[in-house]
Amino acid sequence: MASVSVDEAMRRAIELAARGLGATSPNPVVGCVLLDTDGEVVGEGFHAYAGGPHAEIVALAQAGARARGGTAVVTLEPCDHTGRTGPCSHALIAAGVARVVVAVPDPNPVASGGAATLRAAGVQVTLGVRAQEAEAGNVAWLTSMRRGWPYLIWKYAATLDGRSAAADGTSMWITSEAARIDVHALRGTVDAVLAGVGTVLTDDPRLTARNLRDGTLAIRQPLRVVVDSSGRTPAEARVRDGAARTWVATAAEVGAGPDGRVDLAALLAELHHRGVRAALLEGGPTLAGAFLAAGLVDKIVGYVAPKLLGAGPTALLDAGVSTIADAIDLEITDVTRVGPDLRITALPRKREA
Amino acid sequence: MASVSVDEAMRRAIELAARGLGATSPNPVVGCVLLDTDGEVVGEGFHAYAGGPHAEIVALAQAGARARGGTAVVTLEPCDHTGRTGPCSHALIAAGVARVVVAVPDPNPVASGGAATLRAAGVQVTLGVRAQEAEAGNVAWLTSMRRGWPYLIWKYAATLDGRSAAADGTSMWITSEAARIDVHALRGTVDAVLAGVGTVLTDDPRLTARNLRDGTLAIRQPLRVVVDSSGRTPAEARVRDGAARTWVATAAEVGAGPDGRVDLAALLAELHHRGVRAALLEGGPTLAGAFLAAGLVDKIVGYVAPKLLGAGPTALLDAGVSTIADAIDLEITDVTRVGPDLRITALPRKREA
Ligand SMILES: NC(=O)c1ccc[n+]([C@@H]2O[C@H](COP(=O)([O-])OP(=O)(O)OC[C@H]3O[C@@H](n4cnc5c(N)ncnc54)[C@H](OP(=O)(O)O)[C@@H]3O)[C@@H](O)[C@H]2O)c1
Ligand SMILES: NC(=O)c1ccc[n+]([C@@H]2O[C@H](COP(=O)([O-])OP(=O)(O)OC[C@H]3O[C@@H](n4cnc5c(N)ncnc54)[C@H](OP(=O)(O)O)[C@@H]3O)[C@@H](O)[C@H]2O)c1
Repeated sequence: MASVSVDEAMRRAIELAARGLGATSPNPVVGCVLLDTDGEVVGEGFHAYAGGPHAEIVALAQAGARARGGTAVVTLEPCDHTGRTGPCSHALIAAGVARVVVAVPDPNPVASGGAATLRAAGVQVTLGVRAQEAEAGNVAWLTSMRRGWPYLIWKYAATLDGRSAAADGTSMWITSEAARIDVHALRGTVDAVLAGVGTVLTDDPRLTARNLRDGTLAIRQPLRVVVDSSGRTPAEARVRDGAARTWVATAAEVGAGPDGRVDLAALLAELHHRGVRAALLEGGPTLAGAFLAAGLVDKIVGYVAPKLLGAGPTALLDAGVSTIADAIDLEITDVTRVGPDLRITALPRKREA
Repeated sequence: MASVSVDEAMRRAIELAARGLGATSPNPVVGCVLLDTDGEVVGEGFHAYAGGPHAEIVALAQAGARARGGTAVVTLEPCDHTGRTGPCSHALIAAGVARVVVAVPDPNPVASGGAATLRAAGVQVTLGVRAQEAEAGNVAWLTSMRRGWPYLIWKYAATLDGRSAAADGTSMWITSEAARIDVHALRGTVDAVLAGVGTVLTDDPRLTARNLRDGTLAIRQPLRVVVDSSGRTPAEARVRDGAARTWVATAAEVGAGPDGRVDLAALLAELHHRGVRAALLEGGPTLAGAFLAAGLVDKIVGYVAPKLLGAGPTALLDAGVSTIADAIDLEITDVTRVGPDLRITALPRKREA
């Protein structure tokens, strides 16, 4: 096998890391490539699921004695604490690795310190290789760890003229089956799905990640969260079925904002506390408006159907904007066709205080 | 010069034709390539502006005696009548052209017959080469000639959530300068720009095609049409300035529909009568809804700004749809970034009766 550069190895490690997306929470995704003294790849690994072995451990096991004197190329700073698995820093030292190349330092105060431990043991440590790419691959986890609340994606579906239902309330189906399959895949990458009690009362959604063809449930289900100030979610609501865990978050439990409704920042802090790193806000328009007005949305994914209605409820309400200069500014980062529909991905621009 | 195939020559003729877009109305765009007996290009031409020489005449003048025995490759059937210029069929016969290859037959009952005249004179005529491509390049003109009313493009600007202004009515500027420049270019390709009296009363738009940087007017200005049932357009409205011709189309002049408002089908027929082949409907939401409900829109061009408002007037109103099954179905044919905005082009799907 030909030798590869550290840069190439990091690119590969970032690819490996992405395979864990949606299954590692509350842990990050991590990829690792081990090179021997000649720069040949002797081990590869990624963190596949929470509770499973870390990327470095998988790669070390594969490499065996060939790791000695070699280089470990890792997307995230190796952990330094004994959690469900032993510290990776110690495992790398024990294997005799001479150099560790890291993309992004670990922002987690509990797990960080791996670089220092490695250096103290005489291992050469390099930080920041392909850091931007590795950051992007771990954006939800890194963002949520750094600030203490989940990375929040607002997903909506609307017609080209911004309606989420017709005048008579009918909305099945605005978007295509292809778009709905895409949404279920998106649900599979997050730890929690949020909806307002309004949506639960109107649509009685399941909010599970399913195979839409045969109805089977995905193995890993996000926590279902109903934002419901006074606990109006009916006992027989589908969201309360046994298919996944459900939390009806009331103002009594979470705390209330000045309007008496659930305090959304407190809600997100509580979700973080419960291990939620990435969450999907599925509406409706009122709850989405409240999250947007509070500046708590990190990413927007809109499914836009090639349809016009000219009447009916809009996809967004009451986002705290009354004049054009105060519009919530976005940057569109991606436009993809999903069946006949468009999926528009956008990031809110930082607002001046 | 190397010889080219008739197919290649037609591709070139279609390219040439497109150069006339926006300047030839009420005539079509036409391109012509003349090949000599060896298949070498000896003349090229396109119809550059209404009143100017036809494509065939330009190409023949260039070729001179070398046209004799050659092949004329034309995007549209050569005309057979004496209008502002003499019939092209006669000119081709006089030049001694042996064969004429045509993409699309002329649907214009006044001008058609060129193929028959040519054949009667012993010229070999082939129809249908690259017909689809040539059709696409002339879609507005062909559509309007075949059915007797203009090809109508509805253009709108809205935020990602479908609002065309904020709650307080402010809308300057929802879309970027790049998008506004694009709209002015679009105005330059049509014969008329339509707006409802509501928009005129609220926004007092000029509806001219201008260079947005320095304010200078385009040489060719579309007819400005205000759809105004009872003639409420103020005498001092900007749309009445001297920058371009203006028609305030009232119900008294055009005829009224069952609701007492301007009969939109009659309006379009009258515009066709006045030589309008392509028209741009610039809103507002009520007039657009009425045109869409009547099935009179041929193409939709939406400028979507990366902004959210959550309140304010929507881009479309009252399109005659009350339930999701009756939504106006579109096919999105193009999505292009124009500055920070998206330009989404869509065609209405034919509706079952
Ligand atoms: N197109 C789409 O993507 C999409 C997605 C979902 C839903 N929908 C549609 O949306 C409609 C429901 O709309 P909706 O606006 O009534 O429902 P919603 O946004 O799902 O729920 C709004 C409710 O959430 C509760 N809430 C709790 N804390 C809140 C806070 N801090 N801020 C704001 N709300 C808070 C409020 O009720 P309490 O005060 O009682 O708690 C509020 O009335 C349905 O017709 C559904 O079909 C569309
Ligand atoms: N986002 C955009 O792209 C865009 C573009 C343009 C305007 N706008 C906004 O739209 C707003 C104006 O909206 P609008 O709905 O009042 O104005 P509109 O659609 O421009 O005009 C509507 C008026 O057109 C007249 N009309 C004549 N015949 C009609 C027919 N057959 N069907 C329907 N209407 C007919 C009616 O008044 P009469 O019966 O008195 O004739 C009707 O009230 C403004 O705030 C403007 O900023 C937005």
